[in-house]
Amino acid sequence: LKVFSLNSNRELASQIAEVIGVELGKCSVSRFSDGEIQINIEESIRGCDVFVIQSTNTPINDYLMELLIMIDALKRASAKTINVVMPYYGYARQDRKARAREPITAKLVANLIETAGATRVITLDLHAPQIQGFFDIPIDHLMGVPILAEYFKNREYNGDVVVVSPDHGGVVRARKLADRLKAPIAIIDKRRPRPNVAEVMNIVGNVEGKVCILIDDIIDTAGTITLAANALVESGATEVYACCTHPVLSGPAIERIENSKIKELVVTNSIALPEEKKIDKIKNLSVASLLAEAI
Amino acid sequence: LKVFSLNSNRELASQIAEVIGVELGKCSVSRFSDGEIQINIEESIRGCDVFVIQSTNTPINDYLMELLIMIDALKRASAKTINVVMPYYGYARQDRKARAREPITAKLVANLIETAGATRVITLDLHAPQIQGFFDIPIDHLMGVPILAEYFKNREYNGDVVVVSPDHGGVVRARKLADRLKAPIAIIDKRRPRPNVAEVMNIVGNVEGKVCILIDDIIDTAGTITLAANALVESGATEVYACCTHPVLSGPAIERIENSKIKELVVTNSIALPEEKKIDKIKNLSVASLLAEAI
Ligand SMILES: Nc1ncnc2c1ncn2[C@@H]1O[C@H](COP(=O)(O)O)[C@@H](O)[C@H]1O
Ligand SMILES: Nc1ncnc2c1ncn2[C@@H]1O[C@H](COP(=O)(O)O)[C@@H](O)[C@H]1O
Repeated sequence: LKVFSLNSNRELASQIAEVIGVELGKCSVSRFSDGEIQINIEESIRGCDVFVIQSTNTPINDYLMELLIMIDALKRASAKTINVVMPYYGYARQDRKARAREPITAKLVANLIETAGATRVITLDLHAPQIQGFFDIPIDHLMGVPILAEYFKNREYNGDVVVVSPDHGGVVRARKLADRLKAPIAIIDKRRPRPNVAEVMNIVGNVEGKVCILIDDIIDTAGTITLAANALVESGATEVYACCTHPVLSGPAIERIENSKIKELVVTNSIALPEEKKIDKIKNLSVASLLAEAI
Repeated sequence: LKVFSLNSNRELASQIAEVIGVELGKCSVSRFSDGEIQINIEESIRGCDVFVIQSTNTPINDYLMELLIMIDALKRASAKTINVVMPYYGYARQDRKARAREPITAKLVANLIETAGATRVITLDLHAPQIQGFFDIPIDHLMGVPILAEYFKNREYNGDVVVVSPDHGGVVRARKLADRLKAPIAIIDKRRPRPNVAEVMNIVGNVEGKVCILIDDIIDTAGTITLAANALVESGATEVYACCTHPVLSGPAIERIENSKIKELVVTNSIALPEEKKIDKIKNLSVASLLAEAI
């Protein structure tokens, strides 16, 4: 068994290797002068079960190509199995044709990974669980909710807790967290009464005088989650926490979170946070043990 | 017949469309907030023969993913044929395992393009013609030499012309240009007498008092070509021109060319030159007609 890290998330990879009790495999992933990726695997892997740790967050196309080229190199070096550990699966939101002539990039990515030569994929909280079906190779789909639940369970709150889904699509996820916290759920019910009229945020469920925990899978520009937090406070919530598995946090996200009513945002290290995104309000939990168990 | 341009080389794409006498297809290629590529094809292409113009130069991984996602979108929108026009084929230099455990990224790229759904590829001066065999779909391999030869034929020189290959690998290419210019060839014969000793540049052929034209397929950091030019002048060449099909020109290339003995560098627009690389010494020829003919 060999574990290799590419460039997206070396800290998580080290943690995983430590939990398993192996050294990370030796391998350099760099660039030629013109920007082409150059990979050198510096130890024999013939006949080995190889695990490659790589999330495909920004710069997504570079990290995806690193992964594909690494798989190609492992295949040609006669690895026995090539297991891709992809804590964050980029392009997952492009999972269907919502309009005419759209690509389904999540399926394309699945095809690319298989074509390169992967034999198994391990991933975490896919934006849509249907993406599992995009692969013809075995895929393990892990859940971040237990880790988030564990963190929230071990805290004191000034009042009863309600788990809140920021939209209709996230209710199943909210229910899972609520079960573990033995709490009720509420839903932010956004709708647009007429075209070109501002959305109305209606809250289904009782949040008055309650401590709310918002949950989503991905927080990207943080528009949805910060508006939801403000709506909850307006409806009488005493405190608002938020959590997600994948902290994409692009564009205005950090500023929005800083300026929002969110008291704390709890995320996992499926995506490595660069220094400028490590703010006090964000608590970072590790998925290393969860992934190590699946390896 | 529909012609679409992605982001790598819009000027060449417009020229091609003009030569063929069609408008470029409407299509937006942009980014989501997190950097994921978003493609919208804004006209019906059902049942059409579609040509997509894209070189995979720097930023190579982004341009390659644009191409793959576009192919995916076209396939799902029921294009009759998807013809990829790739004037510059990135990763072509990674075309074999030179050392243990290396990837063969040029083959991976071929597999990715086929997997996405391309039905035919049109390309120009592959670094190794063997890359044609990496595809199971039809591939048209065009030659830049006639365009370069045409330019050099229509000039006046102070003396006899010799075409020079900067290394052993380029002799076939030099011979082709020499045939068209009715000129003899010479070869820069680099060798390292012993390990850790500087390379010796020996010139095979007569260049004294001659006008030399160096030819290569790719000029990347321009180390080889500028050293070759200086060696030619030291051996008595009166003037040195250089030419190539693909002006990658990364890192110190522009500075080296400016400071070299090269009088003029003639390149094609297979790779679009950004403003800062458009220097007086570089003459840019268009391959639009050549590609348009193949369409
Ligand atoms: N990277 C992205 N950032 C923002 N929106 C995206 C991204 N990728 C896809 N989408 C769009 O988001 C929608 C899917 O979001 P959802 O309804 O939450 O599943 C689709 O209509 C996509 O066009
Ligand atoms: N983008 C690149 N820049 C520089 N060298 C490269 C690049 N891609 C591959 N190579 C190396 O260049 C060699 C091939 O060059 P050649 O001998 O000219 O075919 C291989 O050994 C590759 O490892």
